[in-house]
Amino acid sequence: MNLILLHPEDFISPATAVVRDRRRDHIRTVHRAGCGDNLRVGLINGPMGSGQITHSSVDRIELAVSLDQAPPPPLNVTLILALPRPKMLRRVLQSISAMGVKHIYLINSYRVDKSFWKSPLLTTDKLTEQLLLGLEQARDTIVPNVYLRPRFKPFVEDELPVLSEDCSNFVAHPGNYPLCPHGCHGKITLAIGPEGGFIDYEINKFMSCQFTPVSLGERILRVETAVPVLLSRFYQ
Amino acid sequence: MNLILLHPEDFISPATAVVRDRRRDHIRTVHRAGCGDNLRVGLINGPMGSGQITHSSVDRIELAVSLDQAPPPPLNVTLILALPRPKMLRRVLQSISAMGVKHIYLINSYRVDKSFWKSPLLTTDKLTEQLLLGLEQARDTIVPNVYLRPRFKPFVEDELPVLSEDCSNFVAHPGNYPLCPHGCHGKITLAIGPEGGFIDYEINKFMSCQFTPVSLGERILRVETAVPVLLSRFYQ
Repeated sequence: MNLILLHPEDFISPATAVVRDRRRDHIRTVHRAGCGDNLRVGLINGPMGSGQITHSSVDRIELAVSLDQAPPPPLNVTLILALPRPKMLRRVLQSISAMGVKHIYLINSYRVDKSFWKSPLLTTDKLTEQLLLGLEQARDTIVPNVYLRPRFKPFVEDELPVLSEDCSNFVAHPGNYPLCPHGCHGKITLAIGPEGGFIDYEINKFMSCQFTPVSLGERILRVETAVPVLLSRFYQ
Repeated sequence: MNLILLHPEDFISPATAVVRDRRRDHIRTVHRAGCGDNLRVGLINGPMGSGQITHSSVDRIELAVSLDQAPPPPLNVTLILALPRPKMLRRVLQSISAMGVKHIYLINSYRVDKSFWKSPLLTTDKLTEQLLLGLEQARDTIVPNVYLRPRFKPFVEDELPVLSEDCSNFVAHPGNYPLCPHGCHGKITLAIGPEGGFIDYEINKFMSCQFTPVSLGERILRVETAVPVLLSRFYQ
């Protein structure tokens, strides 16, 4: 937790916030911070700054908050990801959020196990929990948007052409394709398939929306590795 | 398991291998492969090719093996990594191995918890287990070398100047440093600190060995994300 994220409802006056829950425990037991100490804080979907502890007890921590910094710029990549298995989804969402992606489409694909769509992790609250962990890690306040698209065809036919317009579009696919470029400028849309890859029908659908297939060379990486590897190519 | 890794002792004749253990179970229950089916196989530290199942039972699978392909080229990066916490080390080793790094120095640093060095994961067998999982995932056969360096000073003073000679050398460090370059040619040595970063003394030691500090921008990433993100910059 490199940043204590504050919710609007934590504020008891314009410059005073009170935290309880796991943030309080983290400040006391991991940061080992007490009265007078300064912590990095940020308002969810707002500015960042510092919070000086003015009261600390088992019950609550009170902070005198000053918010005067902008959060880091987002990564200009819209990510389209075939829904990973729930166990992996947690970590993947955290790293996507930490890396600054703000629009994440979790889509269906032939090789996505149907049961994944029934995971309790896919509720808004649970998704947000993982996204906030990523923001706290990376020191960012802007919560990414996650869109669930359990039907492939309507997504690629109706929505994809619109969201990928005016972007450089790439679909990561194992095979003899050029290596994913680096340092691409402008807006980017990046699609990443399930373990095992998209099927031909799906790749063709992406290609008909002007997506260029790119690879990571001969190696097949797990989704949780492939995602940061691919996003890293677009870090400027 | 995108590649079945064979050990020399699995061979009962020059072109016949027998697998038992978790590989047999994986072939039967995940690949659901039976007699006549072909699997991708590779000889540990040797060539890759295919194996046709000639016998399959609960007890063992017999393969007619033909090895005629070279493993994928390695990533020309020597990685120096402050020893991560054991839970994270597993996943990190798998991804490093999958990405093709062949020389990994796990080193001490002021912010590495001393208890990490006592982890049972640091035995040769346990380390190899994780490295093989990475190779099976990425379809590679060449087992990376892991060197444990529990004393920082002798490592940086005696060993680092030699191993980083004739390389482009980078140390990833949070702060106002240039972004890690991409597409660097030639041999590279990359050092990555612990969560919280190297201390000034340590960074200075790296800099005196001609290591350039580089960052990933304002965001602080977990080691398990930072490692693939940084390695990805050097994928050609």
